Amino acid sequence: MDATSPDRGAGLLPAPNRPELEQLARKLKQVALLEGDFVLHSGARSRFYFDKYLMEADPDSLKLVAEALREILPGEGEFDRLAGVELGGIPLVTALSLSTSLPALFVRQGRKEYGTAKQIEGNFSPGERVVLVEDVVTTGKAALEAIGVIRQEGLEVVRVVAVVDRESGATERFAAAGIPYRFLFTLSYLLSL
Amino acid sequence: MDATSPDRGAGLLPAPNRPELEQLARKLKQVALLEGDFVLHSGARSRFYFDKYLMEADPDSLKLVAEALREILPGEGEFDRLAGVELGGIPLVTALSLSTSLPALFVRQGRKEYGTAKQIEGNFSPGERVVLVEDVVTTGKAALEAIGVIRQEGLEVVRVVAVVDRESGATERFAAAGIPYRFLFTLSYLLSL
Repeated sequence: MDATSPDRGAGLLPAPNRPELEQLARKLKQVALLEGDFVLHSGARSRFYFDKYLMEADPDSLKLVAEALREILPGEGEFDRLAGVELGGIPLVTALSLSTSLPALFVRQGRKEYGTAKQIEGNFSPGERVVLVEDVVTTGKAALEAIGVIRQEGLEVVRVVAVVDRESGATERFAAAGIPYRFLFTLSYLLSL
Repeated sequence: MDATSPDRGAGLLPAPNRPELEQLARKLKQVALLEGDFVLHSGARSRFYFDKYLMEADPDSLKLVAEALREILPGEGEFDRLAGVELGGIPLVTALSLSTSLPALFVRQGRKEYGTAKQIEGNFSPGERVVLVEDVVTTGKAALEAIGVIRQEGLEVVRVVAVVDRESGATERFAAAGIPYRFLFTLSYLLSL
């Protein structure tokens, strides 16, 4: 299995002859990469923080990211729905849903207490195949938790796609779990630009 | 001040000669209106529940809703950003941001504890003018809470726009607070179709 197989974590970049992707990476770095002293979700400290919300709040960036993500989705007919996890995954899955005309699922972090009381919002049937759309993946633990929630509803997760991979164990963790994983950019690639 | 003034709650429908809006209303009723026994956020029970997530998870509906919402936004140059409140307002504000190319703000219900620790995600400067985009408005209390959060950051809320108004006091409450309010459809109009 080579490094660009969809069964292993594989970024779209660096790749030769893809100036539009490099341009997108430069744009994301400019729009969303912050330098400072940050505490990540995992508890680790970092000098760099990719603020996905800055990327998602900028419609031009979000549109281009959705177009790029289309390239790392499975083929037409190989999956039924796109899922995103609140909060960061919601604008992203919405943009990708609008771009592909494929229906979305919105995964809650906790169960809501009023209305229809579902942990996954949107319409679905057991057995359907889902692609989980992530903004920034670090260890992959949060994505695996979301996959657990999605599977509890009888859905199958056929791939995880992400915008930025922080190269902190997610590729290995997804491989061990047998879940195909693709991403657009590594954080170190953004930093190298 | 007449009933269609933007300074009072005013729905786009019923209106003569707008067959495409009536068609959208019929579509939303079909996609998102559930009948059963529901407990609303306000604690009240209802036989009908407009599941905004079913509307937002369907890219065709969401695209058409965003197009319709553009009609009730203030004019170009009269506001700077679109804001949506988690979770239901996030797909909506994302779609409207993509449709208008205006930047989005994502308002959290509670403060996050890692990363950049903001209650409003996205880029903004004090003094900017914001339109709050709501999915379903009942009493308007939740929207007024969000407006309080937005104002705390030094931003001005120049209008609230909503997809569905449940005619449960929001129009009066927004008028009393001096906040212009527009919506696309009343729930009773959807039920009447």
